[in-house]
Amino acid sequence: MRKADVVVIGGSAAGLTAAITARRHYPDRTILLVRQEKQVLIPCGIPYIFGTLGSPQKNLVGDAVLEKNNIDLLIAEAKDIDRERRVLHTSAGDVEYERMIIATGSRPAMPPIPGFDLDGVYTAAKDVEALAALQQHLKAATDVVIVGGGFIGIELADEINKIGDKNITIVEILPHCLALAYDEEFCCEMEEVLKSRGVNLRTATRVERIAGNGRVEKVILSDGGEIMADVVVLGIGAVANVDLAKAAGLRLGLTGGIAVDRTMQTSDTSIFACGDCAEKISFFGGGPSPLKLASIATLEARIAGANLFGLRRENVGTVGVWSTAVGTMALATAGLTEGMATKRGYDVVAATVAGPNRHPGIMPGAAATKVKLVFERNSGVLLGGQVMGGPAAGEIINAISACVQNRMTAEDIAMFQTGTHPALTASPVAYHMVNAAEMAIQRMRERGG
Amino acid sequence: MRKADVVVIGGSAAGLTAAITARRHYPDRTILLVRQEKQVLIPCGIPYIFGTLGSPQKNLVGDAVLEKNNIDLLIAEAKDIDRERRVLHTSAGDVEYERMIIATGSRPAMPPIPGFDLDGVYTAAKDVEALAALQQHLKAATDVVIVGGGFIGIELADEINKIGDKNITIVEILPHCLALAYDEEFCCEMEEVLKSRGVNLRTATRVERIAGNGRVEKVILSDGGEIMADVVVLGIGAVANVDLAKAAGLRLGLTGGIAVDRTMQTSDTSIFACGDCAEKISFFGGGPSPLKLASIATLEARIAGANLFGLRRENVGTVGVWSTAVGTMALATAGLTEGMATKRGYDVVAATVAGPNRHPGIMPGAAATKVKLVFERNSGVLLGGQVMGGPAAGEIINAISACVQNRMTAEDIAMFQTGTHPALTASPVAYHMVNAAEMAIQRMRERGG
Repeated sequence: MRKADVVVIGGSAAGLTAAITARRHYPDRTILLVRQEKQVLIPCGIPYIFGTLGSPQKNLVGDAVLEKNNIDLLIAEAKDIDRERRVLHTSAGDVEYERMIIATGSRPAMPPIPGFDLDGVYTAAKDVEALAALQQHLKAATDVVIVGGGFIGIELADEINKIGDKNITIVEILPHCLALAYDEEFCCEMEEVLKSRGVNLRTATRVERIAGNGRVEKVILSDGGEIMADVVVLGIGAVANVDLAKAAGLRLGLTGGIAVDRTMQTSDTSIFACGDCAEKISFFGGGPSPLKLASIATLEARIAGANLFGLRRENVGTVGVWSTAVGTMALATAGLTEGMATKRGYDVVAATVAGPNRHPGIMPGAAATKVKLVFERNSGVLLGGQVMGGPAAGEIINAISACVQNRMTAEDIAMFQTGTHPALTASPVAYHMVNAAEMAIQRMRERGG
Repeated sequence: MRKADVVVIGGSAAGLTAAITARRHYPDRTILLVRQEKQVLIPCGIPYIFGTLGSPQKNLVGDAVLEKNNIDLLIAEAKDIDRERRVLHTSAGDVEYERMIIATGSRPAMPPIPGFDLDGVYTAAKDVEALAALQQHLKAATDVVIVGGGFIGIELADEINKIGDKNITIVEILPHCLALAYDEEFCCEMEEVLKSRGVNLRTATRVERIAGNGRVEKVILSDGGEIMADVVVLGIGAVANVDLAKAAGLRLGLTGGIAVDRTMQTSDTSIFACGDCAEKISFFGGGPSPLKLASIATLEARIAGANLFGLRRENVGTVGVWSTAVGTMALATAGLTEGMATKRGYDVVAATVAGPNRHPGIMPGAAATKVKLVFERNSGVLLGGQVMGGPAAGEIINAISACVQNRMTAEDIAMFQTGTHPALTASPVAYHMVNAAEMAIQRMRERGG
């Protein structure tokens, strides 16, 4: 029987990173990565296939990194785990393992909408052939409806819009696109950008039914509206792939993911899980977190991979750091928004600073930039931040993430040591996050009295 | 006699920020800013006057922010401080103060080079008229020599090169440009960029003499070489302006700045100092630091301004975070380089990760990016980082700065929670700083045995 010290199931962000991390930490162990897909897509790059990149083939994770790290690859379906004998049954035979990492990911959520099985209804599935079929179908389509105005929905809409001559509409059940991750003022700015680029928005309404005769013809909304549709793409979230783990008797968590402790160990100490398939806890309070992001997956994979033969790392819980972009505008978030924090019961002080990301503001590349920080009033601890601006917003949020992870206070951030440069950043006098911290301190004092 | 609760002397980054901070923290106090200059230049923007911006007038800090913050302005020369009576004598009369902040900045260092007083020899002084004169002179110049290959020198060279049809040479005494702030491999990359843009480099040589008959004609080097010169610009560093403080009997520090404690208080408890005129200590070990940067100045100003009527903040010492850019390449540094750390006596482990700042690497805006992290071997604590890449390097360094300031270890950084996006950042699997931390951990383990 085939044998490997470590068997990793899944080859996307989590599985790949777990295998590489295992190699780094356990240079003498044999590592086998088992996955179904011949080719692995870069998950976050999927929306960009349709416009910017032009083809699923341009959005692949190559296998060179496996070879470079001396990781064996078996392309096969993982059928069943015999935990007692530590054997994985696959469509290409059995594999004996000493430690296993399950990184089976997630699949697009399918809403309970009549008509979602009509021809012309797609998801943004991590599957090269399905995406190629969608791309083909889109070429001939005129009316495209995107269900879901989260980051996948808005990125898909903007990218499909680049194909040209289409009538694109996003349908979002919440009052605003991105409303689960950004405070309203940021959502509104992004909606303006989408509209200015020709994307139609139907918010605060639900898809009641997808209608058509074998093939999708229109989308019927809960507010009575109807939208013509040649293609419908569902982007309403993801569901953990836990069939294999569940069948093997591993415990599941509150949100339906594979239950893991802070070391990413499952209810079987020989088996770890990470990525979209694993249950997550929040950095804030430790309750269950519904977030599914590639960056969370790779963090968990670095913990699981390091812990295989000796517990070395613990997960402090998911901060939730991510960004999105449409045209020249990027939006980024880390931790809790003002709305989320208030809803959870924090007494918050928020402060927003707007200004250019260059100094003077006429330097090339200057973009209107806005940073909002949210602090807990009593301790002054940073709970989260949101950034709107040019491409560097995607890295500004990582500085804010570092502040959140270190539970820095407004006072700490007011004394943050920034690097600034006329051609690269805001001025040191007006650096957004530092001034937002100062504003928040002032507000805490004014109310504290 | 004119009276103000707070008198700030100096209107550049430090003085301005100190006054604004004083206003935030002490809303009921009267604040007077005294400065000599009619118009205040953005200090870091000075090199960009010559190419990108086109005029000193396009690189000004406006006075609107003073009015907005209810800060009075007196344009006058500060002549003398009567500390016993708490009176500042100025060219426009006396001012009684309760607390004073000295932010008199620095002036360009003048080397002991024969001929530096010839017509045609300039510095990058923070003076609108002097810079306008230099700009005028440059228009007619063919051969331009920049003395000093630090960030001011290379930015000046590249910007002056944009005027067109010039022969520009940087003379640097050290083996490489930027050698005081970057490890050699980064310096070499920047030198290649400068050369590819037509800037001549003469490194590891010293200016022996500037020759000419009343007017500069050539620069004579210690290696025997000579360079024709119509204009020479000196960019070899800055000297603290401490005349006023010294005359008032305030204690000076080891590097010649005004001595201050961690609260930015001088030897007179009513007088604080901040910015280039104030003595600095290093975040690493607490010894004297020679760094003079606008971002350090504003940090110190936020401490001084908050502490005026009650000590609220302490300076943890200068990390040293800054960036520079030539063309599309940005370089950024925080904390100690490998060379600096080794020289100071640290046993270091360094790791460098290179790869694109987008994923997949064919996304628009992708730039080759390199991140080097330097850790103390025994504790694993991050001592510093350097970044080379696109414009966002200027913000990546701020994430690294946060890690340094929080004395995060390689293990902490391996579990850093990043936000990533195809159009904005590297992939979560290959995120530079996280992978550099993983590499360093591996190296520590290999040698630690």
